Amino acid sequence: MSLICSTIQHIAPLDAAAMQAARERQNTLTKPLGSLGRLEDLSVQLAGIQRRARPDVSSKAIFVMAGDHGCVAEGVSAYPQEVTPQMVFNFARGGAAINVLACHVGARVIVVDMGVAGDCAAESVITRKIARGTQNMAVGPAMSADEARRCIEAGIEILEGELARGLDLAGTGDMGIGNTTPSAAIIAAFTGQSPAAVTGRGTGIDDARLAIKVGVIERALAANKPDPTDALDVLAKVGGFEIGGLAGVIIAAAAHHVPVVIDGVISSAAALIATGLAPQSRDYLIAGHLSVEPGHRAALGHMKLEPVLDLGMRLGEGTGGALAMNVVDAAAKTLNGMATFTDAGVSEALEE
Amino acid sequence: MSLICSTIQHIAPLDAAAMQAARERQNTLTKPLGSLGRLEDLSVQLAGIQRRARPDVSSKAIFVMAGDHGCVAEGVSAYPQEVTPQMVFNFARGGAAINVLACHVGARVIVVDMGVAGDCAAESVITRKIARGTQNMAVGPAMSADEARRCIEAGIEILEGELARGLDLAGTGDMGIGNTTPSAAIIAAFTGQSPAAVTGRGTGIDDARLAIKVGVIERALAANKPDPTDALDVLAKVGGFEIGGLAGVIIAAAAHHVPVVIDGVISSAAALIATGLAPQSRDYLIAGHLSVEPGHRAALGHMKLEPVLDLGMRLGEGTGGALAMNVVDAAAKTLNGMATFTDAGVSEALEE
Repeated sequence: MSLICSTIQHIAPLDAAAMQAARERQNTLTKPLGSLGRLEDLSVQLAGIQRRARPDVSSKAIFVMAGDHGCVAEGVSAYPQEVTPQMVFNFARGGAAINVLACHVGARVIVVDMGVAGDCAAESVITRKIARGTQNMAVGPAMSADEARRCIEAGIEILEGELARGLDLAGTGDMGIGNTTPSAAIIAAFTGQSPAAVTGRGTGIDDARLAIKVGVIERALAANKPDPTDALDVLAKVGGFEIGGLAGVIIAAAAHHVPVVIDGVISSAAALIATGLAPQSRDYLIAGHLSVEPGHRAALGHMKLEPVLDLGMRLGEGTGGALAMNVVDAAAKTLNGMATFTDAGVSEALEE
Repeated sequence: MSLICSTIQHIAPLDAAAMQAARERQNTLTKPLGSLGRLEDLSVQLAGIQRRARPDVSSKAIFVMAGDHGCVAEGVSAYPQEVTPQMVFNFARGGAAINVLACHVGARVIVVDMGVAGDCAAESVITRKIARGTQNMAVGPAMSADEARRCIEAGIEILEGELARGLDLAGTGDMGIGNTTPSAAIIAAFTGQSPAAVTGRGTGIDDARLAIKVGVIERALAANKPDPTDALDVLAKVGGFEIGGLAGVIIAAAAHHVPVVIDGVISSAAALIATGLAPQSRDYLIAGHLSVEPGHRAALGHMKLEPVLDLGMRLGEGTGGALAMNVVDAAAKTLNGMATFTDAGVSEALEE
């Protein structure tokens, strides 16, 4: 059996008994019933994922995967492709937003070259280059079916390689000039929405470039006809290596009972691939932050996920997810650390 | 000159030069322009408040003020009044949600008895009891004009007492059974909205109790006729001791160039008092979390503040503000800690 199939087979439903125990404990803590809102729901989800009434998310890692995209030849981005390896070096040296924010929330950053066109080897960068950038999806498949499988397998192996260091909470992040373009194509393929409805300005392109970008996605869908019932086909036809890698990270995290905080539109495209392959993996996801990109709401809605944060960010790298990790951590800490009414000798509500 | 007047006179406009320098630095950091969204805006506001291009919010304190309310005799809360001192003891022992969340974000908790009806003396509780609970505002003023002045002065002194320990970021929190009732009355008085529109279920009351609560606020406004152009009058007529204390904290923080993260509906009622007394203090406020209480949106709208978080919380104590402190910290850290395009050798966007 292939690594992808065996990993998917290990994804179990959430543990209902642990969730029930966590919910019951929430109801004994010194606060009005339900008054911690989303924190309570997150704590119960964590209990179900980790299969224990007292979940813990102390050990955190954010997987930042990089890749390049053939469709940048069409002029879909305001930045030159050389920025992809430059930013990978920036990650390796700790100068990017994700480095600052991961440090802030106590997460380590795992940087992976999944398919950057240029050279970006550095001591702290894991190299799993599937190819030097995808092909131009506007005129044919972004990658072969074999490459699609290989990037998901790489993601699985990289997640599993981190388990020994301790991994209670995973985050996903991305780098790749042009990668909101395949992400929007994936979102259009799965949701059935039009490219115009799900395509945004990415790093901040102008109207002329936005029209080009929408046109590229329309041509890519028409030329490749990705099959939304076959997530590997969608990844191969209109995806990217870093997107496939992140889908592998998600599937493997779910198989190993690790909750995953997904970031913005690229991570959510990866989550669409992951949940297409393994619908059960959806329950292991926490949507960290609502991106400004219009396709993001569509992607989250398709997976029935509600974002934790909405801070007007559109940077990628896993930055929104990193900030949300702090809220997830707070959810576990309040469940575990608060006194009960009995412990504290506090009177409960009068019967209504 | 009174302490309140001299404090207000020290509140300066934000430092435009520091804000400009922070904005210029944001534009040189390795990310698309504006892509950190709210974090960038917060970093610029912090620069303006702290009057330096590189703001720092390492030293944090949350001021949790407690008081009781005469109007609970009308049956506005599902919890008995004895819960106020019980929860103060819970704060003193570290068992409440605010203790867990303050620890999580690296803030110390300053607990103040501003006017709890019962006894709640403990080593870590500051006692500034103005009286043992307010009078029932449904039939007359909640407190005298002198008591209103004294609770604001107490808040000023308590904030100033913390400056020597280091205070880069302040938070506000509350405890007081029944205190969403005076808060809604204050919000109705300042915004002109009807009591029914701004009154919510607080700790989770049923329809019958909600009708009683709206009626109490209607009677309080009719009986006392608080003057919205005189914030001290509003505080005296339909306020609370902890609400006045928090208004003092806000004014003093602004006078000492300390940003203040306000929490939910009670903190926002305090902010309405503070900004009524000192309109300039508004620029020193950061709205931490949007409460489920319907009056909260009205209060924030009146002050033109947008909440950082919306996590469905309705606990008070400063819990929503505490979580938002983490985002505020992230805003300062990204401004200070990220590499510039030049530092990192990353290419900038092509001219559009």
